[in-house]
Amino acid sequence: MNDLKAFFAEVSALVNAELEWLIPAEGPGPRSLRDAMRWSLFGGGKHFRPGLVFAVGRTFGALDEKLVRTAAAVEMIHTYSLIHDDLPSMDDDDLRRGRETCHKKFGEATAILAGDALQVIAFQAIAEDEKLSHGTRIDLIRGLSRAAARMVVGQQHDLEAEGKELNLEEIETIHVNKTGALIAFSAAAGAIVAGAEAKDVAVVSKYAEGLGLLFQITDDLLDVTATSEELGKTAGKDLAAEKATYPKVLGVDATRTKLSEVLEVTASLLDRLSVETSLLRSIADFLVSRRF
Amino acid sequence: MNDLKAFFAEVSALVNAELEWLIPAEGPGPRSLRDAMRWSLFGGGKHFRPGLVFAVGRTFGALDEKLVRTAAAVEMIHTYSLIHDDLPSMDDDDLRRGRETCHKKFGEATAILAGDALQVIAFQAIAEDEKLSHGTRIDLIRGLSRAAARMVVGQQHDLEAEGKELNLEEIETIHVNKTGALIAFSAAAGAIVAGAEAKDVAVVSKYAEGLGLLFQITDDLLDVTATSEELGKTAGKDLAAEKATYPKVLGVDATRTKLSEVLEVTASLLDRLSVETSLLRSIADFLVSRRF
Repeated sequence: MNDLKAFFAEVSALVNAELEWLIPAEGPGPRSLRDAMRWSLFGGGKHFRPGLVFAVGRTFGALDEKLVRTAAAVEMIHTYSLIHDDLPSMDDDDLRRGRETCHKKFGEATAILAGDALQVIAFQAIAEDEKLSHGTRIDLIRGLSRAAARMVVGQQHDLEAEGKELNLEEIETIHVNKTGALIAFSAAAGAIVAGAEAKDVAVVSKYAEGLGLLFQITDDLLDVTATSEELGKTAGKDLAAEKATYPKVLGVDATRTKLSEVLEVTASLLDRLSVETSLLRSIADFLVSRRF
Repeated sequence: MNDLKAFFAEVSALVNAELEWLIPAEGPGPRSLRDAMRWSLFGGGKHFRPGLVFAVGRTFGALDEKLVRTAAAVEMIHTYSLIHDDLPSMDDDDLRRGRETCHKKFGEATAILAGDALQVIAFQAIAEDEKLSHGTRIDLIRGLSRAAARMVVGQQHDLEAEGKELNLEEIETIHVNKTGALIAFSAAAGAIVAGAEAKDVAVVSKYAEGLGLLFQITDDLLDVTATSEELGKTAGKDLAAEKATYPKVLGVDATRTKLSEVLEVTASLLDRLSVETSLLRSIADFLVSRRF
C-alpha cells in the first residue's frame, strides 16, 4: 500500500506539472476564467484517473513522457464534469474536496465557462501532443469523446432519478456512464499509448469498469458511514437528496458483500494479460480499503 | 443574391441530414437530453458557419462528402455556445431564433448538459470521420478546439464588460474571440479538408475574420434598427444590457462607414488567391446587406 501511495504521489507531481504548463497562472485572457479553472484543477484531487493512465501505460511499457499529456487531459475532463455537476441547477454543492466549489468562489457564469474551457482544452491538448502519432491521437480523442458523452448521459439520468425508487440495474446504468466511462477510458488510454493489442485494450477497459464500480460502491458506503470532514464534501448528501445508492437498495451489509464479489471478478480479469499486473491488482485492493 | 440563397438552402439540407444522422430523434440515453440538443440544433439556424465550410471547401475543390461532417461539427459548437450563452447566469435570454431558448423549454440543468454534449459530440464526429486522413482530422480538431477555447474567453470578456464603457479595440477583442474565432475556423476548415496550401488557409482565415467583423457590426446595427419580430430575438437587448456595441461607441452613421471599410479590406484579401472566388465575394456582400 505504501508503494501505491508513492506511485500516486509521483503521478500527481507529473500531472500537476503538465497542467501548470497547459494552463499557467499567468497568461492571456480573463484572469477570473484562468483562476476558476486552476481553482478546480489544483483543488487537491486524488488523480485516480491519471493514475490509471500511468499504471496501465507503464504496465504495457509506455514511457511517462508519452502518457503525461493524456493523463492531464483526463483530469481536465474529470474536473470540468465536477464543476458542472456541482452547479446550483444540478447537484447544488457548496463544498468539493474540502473547499468552496467553483461557482461558490467565482460565480455561476464563470464556473460554467471554466468547465466549458477545460473540456475543450483537454481535446486540444491531445490533438497537439507531438509525442504521439496522428493515429494514436485520433484513437485517444475518439475514446475520450465517447467517454465524455456518456458522462453527460449519466448525469442527466442521475438528475432525472432523484426522488425515484431505482433498482440495482438502473443504478448501475447511471454509474457506468457517469463515472465508469472515464475510468474505463483512462485505463484504455494507457494501453493505447503503449501500442497494446486491441484485445488487451479491451481487457483493461473491462478491468477499469470494475474499478469504477468498486469506486462507486465504496463512495456510497462512505456517504453513509463517514463524516463530512473525512470526505471533504457534505456527508449524508446522497441520502438527503434521495439519490439512488447501493446501501439504500441493498442495505449496508449486502453492499459490503457486493463489494467483495466485484473485487474478485475485477482482479481475475488481469489473469488474461501476459504482462506483470501487480500494480493494477493493488489499485483494485486499494479502492476497496479506502476510508475517504 | 438568389444564387447565394440557393447555396445556403443546399448547405442547410446537407448539414441537417448529417446532424439527423449524428443525433437522431430516436436512440439510447435520456429522451430529454436528446430533445434539448435537437431543439437547439434544428431551431432554424441560418447555417452561416457550415456555409463557409462548404463555400471555401468547394472553392478549393473539396468534395461535399468530405466537408459535411466538419460543417456539422462547426454547427454543433456554434449551437452549444448559444445554449450556454443564453443561460440565466449569462445573457439570460428567453427567445432565440423566434422560439424559446433551450433552458426555457427544458430547464437549466438539461440545457447545460445539452450544450456539454454538443461540444463533445462535435469533436467525436470529426475524430470518427473515416472520409478524412488522420492528419486532416488532427488539423481540424486542433483548429476547432482553439476556436472553441477562444469563444469561451470572448464570452467571459463580454460578461465582464457589461455596464462598462469600452473603446473600439476592447469591443473588437471580444468579437474576434466570441464570434470571429469560429467563423475564421469554418473557412480554414474548408481549405484544410481540400488540402489547400498553408498560405491559402491563412488567407481564407483572415477573410473570414473580416466576415466575422462584418457580421457583428451588422448585428449591432440591427439591434438598434430592427424589430424583435424581424430578428427572431429581443431587439434593443444589447442597449438595455449596456453592452458595448459599435453604434454605442461610434454612433449609427460612423458604424455604417466602418462597415463599408471592412467590406473593402475583406474582399480585397481574396485577390491573393489563384482560385475562382466569386462565391466568397458574394458572401461578404450578402452579410453587409442583410436586414435580419
